[in-house]
Amino acid sequence: MQEFGSETESFFVFNGTGANVSGLACVTRPFQAIICAESAHINVDECCSPERFTGCKLLDVKTPDGKLKPSMVTPFFASLGDEHQAQPAVISITQASECGTVYQPSEIKDLADIAHANGMILHMDGARLANAAAYLGCTLREITGDCGVDVLSFGGTKNGMMYGEAVIFFSPVLAQEYKYFRKQAGQLASKMRYIAIQFETLLTNELWRQNAGNANNMARLLADRIAGLQNLHIAFPVESNAVFVRIPESAINTLLEEYFFYVTDDNGPVARFMTCFDTSEEDVRMFSESLQRALVQ
Amino acid sequence: MQEFGSETESFFVFNGTGANVSGLACVTRPFQAIICAESAHINVDECCSPERFTGCKLLDVKTPDGKLKPSMVTPFFASLGDEHQAQPAVISITQASECGTVYQPSEIKDLADIAHANGMILHMDGARLANAAAYLGCTLREITGDCGVDVLSFGGTKNGMMYGEAVIFFSPVLAQEYKYFRKQAGQLASKMRYIAIQFETLLTNELWRQNAGNANNMARLLADRIAGLQNLHIAFPVESNAVFVRIPESAINTLLEEYFFYVTDDNGPVARFMTCFDTSEEDVRMFSESLQRALVQ
Amino acid sequence: MQEFGSETESFFVFNGTGANVSGLACVTRPFQAIICAESAHINVDECCSPERFTGCKLLDVKTPDGKLKPSMVTPFFASLGDEHQAQPAVISITQASECGTVYQPSEIKDLADIAHANGMILHMDGARLANAAAYLGCTLREITGDCGVDVLSFGGTKNGMMYGEAVIFFSPVLAQEYKYFRKQAGQLASKMRYIAIQFETLLTNELWRQNAGNANNMARLLADRIAGLQNLHIAFPVESNAVFVRIPESAINTLLEEYFFYVTDDNGPVARFMTCFDTSEEDVRMFSESLQRALVQ
Amino acid sequence: MQEFGSETESFFVFNGTGANVSGLACVTRPFQAIICAESAHINVDECCSPERFTGCKLLDVKTPDGKLKPSMVTPFFASLGDEHQAQPAVISITQASECGTVYQPSEIKDLADIAHANGMILHMDGARLANAAAYLGCTLREITGDCGVDVLSFGGTKNGMMYGEAVIFFSPVLAQEYKYFRKQAGQLASKMRYIAIQFETLLTNELWRQNAGNANNMARLLADRIAGLQNLHIAFPVESNAVFVRIPESAINTLLEEYFFYVTDDNGPVARFMTCFDTSEEDVRMFSESLQRALVQ
Repeated sequence: MQEFGSETESFFVFNGTGANVSGLACVTRPFQAIICAESAHINVDECCSPERFTGCKLLDVKTPDGKLKPSMVTPFFASLGDEHQAQPAVISITQASECGTVYQPSEIKDLADIAHANGMILHMDGARLANAAAYLGCTLREITGDCGVDVLSFGGTKNGMMYGEAVIFFSPVLAQEYKYFRKQAGQLASKMRYIAIQFETLLTNELWRQNAGNANNMARLLADRIAGLQNLHIAFPVESNAVFVRIPESAINTLLEEYFFYVTDDNGPVARFMTCFDTSEEDVRMFSESLQRALVQ
Repeated sequence: MQEFGSETESFFVFNGTGANVSGLACVTRPFQAIICAESAHINVDECCSPERFTGCKLLDVKTPDGKLKPSMVTPFFASLGDEHQAQPAVISITQASECGTVYQPSEIKDLADIAHANGMILHMDGARLANAAAYLGCTLREITGDCGVDVLSFGGTKNGMMYGEAVIFFSPVLAQEYKYFRKQAGQLASKMRYIAIQFETLLTNELWRQNAGNANNMARLLADRIAGLQNLHIAFPVESNAVFVRIPESAINTLLEEYFFYVTDDNGPVARFMTCFDTSEEDVRMFSESLQRALVQ
Repeated sequence: MQEFGSETESFFVFNGTGANVSGLACVTRPFQAIICAESAHINVDECCSPERFTGCKLLDVKTPDGKLKPSMVTPFFASLGDEHQAQPAVISITQASECGTVYQPSEIKDLADIAHANGMILHMDGARLANAAAYLGCTLREITGDCGVDVLSFGGTKNGMMYGEAVIFFSPVLAQEYKYFRKQAGQLASKMRYIAIQFETLLTNELWRQNAGNANNMARLLADRIAGLQNLHIAFPVESNAVFVRIPESAINTLLEEYFFYVTDDNGPVARFMTCFDTSEEDVRMFSESLQRALVQ
Repeated sequence: MQEFGSETESFFVFNGTGANVSGLACVTRPFQAIICAESAHINVDECCSPERFTGCKLLDVKTPDGKLKPSMVTPFFASLGDEHQAQPAVISITQASECGTVYQPSEIKDLADIAHANGMILHMDGARLANAAAYLGCTLREITGDCGVDVLSFGGTKNGMMYGEAVIFFSPVLAQEYKYFRKQAGQLASKMRYIAIQFETLLTNELWRQNAGNANNMARLLADRIAGLQNLHIAFPVESNAVFVRIPESAINTLLEEYFFYVTDDNGPVARFMTCFDTSEEDVRMFSESLQRALVQ
């Protein structure tokens, strides 16, 4: 894909788990380890597919906002060379993160630098990369290859496609064996044209930015509407299409009767409200009112 | 799916490799073995995904026509109970077979019987099950659950869908853990509705039979048109949507300039011509003429 | 082995990693998870062999003293039934723990109860089980099968054998397929008699208790001798054959010139001193004096 | 080990399956394939541990005498580059073979040449390498590294050791990551000195040759004694410590009452008689007489 630079190699796959797992398998050996945030999709939402398919251990770190920092990563390097321990080989970050926050380019570069200085790879789960680029007002390349990302899962499904993601390697050498991993992972579509045409559409005239931008705007709008409500606390900066709020459990239960959303527990329940490419202002207004009613009951 | 009986449990997945591998993983333990025809898709076309994801060994048998017979399977039972050898646990058959031939219901029953009598499972790769049912003039159930098939990969992609297959368990007990294997195998679609609606359409008013029937008819038509040509020998009975022919390598090369098809080598080249749900009589006519020209050069 | 009860099934293997990994593989399915202490050998000292060979995720918990408590385990049960997450299926504890502490029988029973109430298995890494039994003055069975342990790695190597461990199942049903996992894991000795005779010797007249008792006594002696030294803090209760001490890094470096021991970092360096079946009082005296000298430099 | 040249790197492991599987895992990627004789230990006697631990497919070939020839191997190269098929990456041969036959140096060189010419590795299962070297009257190196073998499992157990094998890499580059694979495979002995001292003894003054030579001589003696017996046919050239004979099933059953040996079926039963480092002429005489009696009953 031209958006990522001329040296890149792109491969279409079916879904996000498939993109992450096959991409990671391609750049690891089965005795190695992948460092990631505790909240990472690969750590908590893929039914240990990464462990099963790569053989690697996931070394997860608690983060305040879903974002890794070099200081969280470096302690794991102590095990390098010790045959008793899985060998750190990949740092995997999520852009936008699972908390809805967005890495600045410089933050990505810093992680890439310590990865590369230690012979490691920087992997990015970009299921919502478009949202991050829309938030930052930058190109897709400026927060991936240009920052030192080596392997990227570039999401299509969350940004309006029926299905389809892409695995992108920023160096041809890394991509050499990928086609075998994709096939083995059950991610080679026989009618690939149906994924290709969706991506072509999404990339034409930056439709991806328009879709992601709308999702971001609606999240911003939602956050603004509910920010002052009593008994409600917005848990993370709203930088993409997610609004995380701490609200009483009773309000959650009332709201769940009307809307579906995920709830996690971090010293009290945290509700995750997601907007998307076709969320409208009217949707946000109605949801906000339901939330308000739920809070005052 | 009602077509397979009320006791069945159905799960949608992305593609054929995913269906086979996740279904087989669900019914095996990693020290076991899967008996299949040497030509089986799981044996030669899935980049050892079955071995990788199930841990099992594939015990493959040469067959004259792509179909297993009990006598080919039973010799493997000698290793049952011997800890030095992978333990046969599944017989996997393909309907229609990779040679385009079709198992009669009684042939499937015989394999199911010896499988069950030995505590084993009968798995069917039904990527082209619709073609087999159309050929036999029977329902989908009559050549699967009714014959003792335990787990089925039911193909949609080869019968006109954009993407999507189903894994069907004919006993709820076998299906209990499947949802985890599907997720882990990267085969859980977040927007599953787009697979569901395609299957719903395919199963309405037996559209599947219409599509597969056309493919079969066009293969039959092709076979009839070319049967008498000099230097051409039809290698297997034409019972579904495939016509395998032995023709000289020079003819193959000429034809490959116009059409894409696979060629295998079995004491001389064998070309595989496939028809599909939207192949027309005109397509067949034009292809036959190209073939005829290629043969006389 | 009679020591563990008549219903048990015992299998000899080569080493501790082999015992843990093959035993765990036998009682898990590849989409499941194993809950353990962060310090567990399976988590930090087996080069992700458990993940690689079982396919499972390890869910690790920080502990103050190497011992799991029910309250640390139950939060993981929230993911039961959710196909996006690896399914907790085993609680794995280490007796004596990696901190040298010993589970009381009632503590083990409590963990067994919550495991079994949730359809899970209690696994025990008993590389130093003999030390725990010697400390508690009980039989081997009283802190394993009698407390609800389902699968045990029973250590021989750390208690004086040249090599050899045993995997013990407290229910024959669990053991049914183990012989295949042992073979597949490369843990089936062709000349098994050499492991058997060592275990026979160790179990005759409770030689195991004598060996482990000596190791424990020497650790106790060491702890007593050094307890009052300045700049030295004993980090965990001394209940088996390990003494963990916080001492200045300079003292560690001096001592490492004479003796080999492991050092971990937990807000400052912690040195691990191990005694064994043939450690003598003279050894302890000499080591204590070296330590004393190192501290005063 | 000096016996194999100064550039080699040697690692001790517990047993033959562990040596083969960890060595193969180190030189493969999980989408690849290993070409071997159908009779190979890795193919039929390791409970699919190679598939499970390497992820690779085993491509097995029928052989008349347990030995691969280039012409049996090259047909598999047709799949190179095709992502649908496991990619051949290793040729694995057994010296002495499972039929008791021995590869001549030139035969090994030929296989090494086609392996290397195709970017592949030559692996040797040398569980009975000493017997082959004793038979050929050559050094261990002359039929391994000097012939182009890249990775070797060098057997100790079958040649008189209690336990212990070695994995030997003939190029340091290939060995770089092996220590992690050994640990992960459960093949790292904590008291490695007990394996080391056995190997040291075996290699001192060519004790290995003396042991293997005796085994070979006793097999030769056995073959000579029974060669002319009625209803007995020696199935393969006797070149190491195995004598394979075709004898009636009744004779087999009678003999099994006195002696243990394996029987395979290849259009009629074939009994495998093995001699070893401490087989005596008296043992051979007694066995021959028992065999003679069993044949005439």
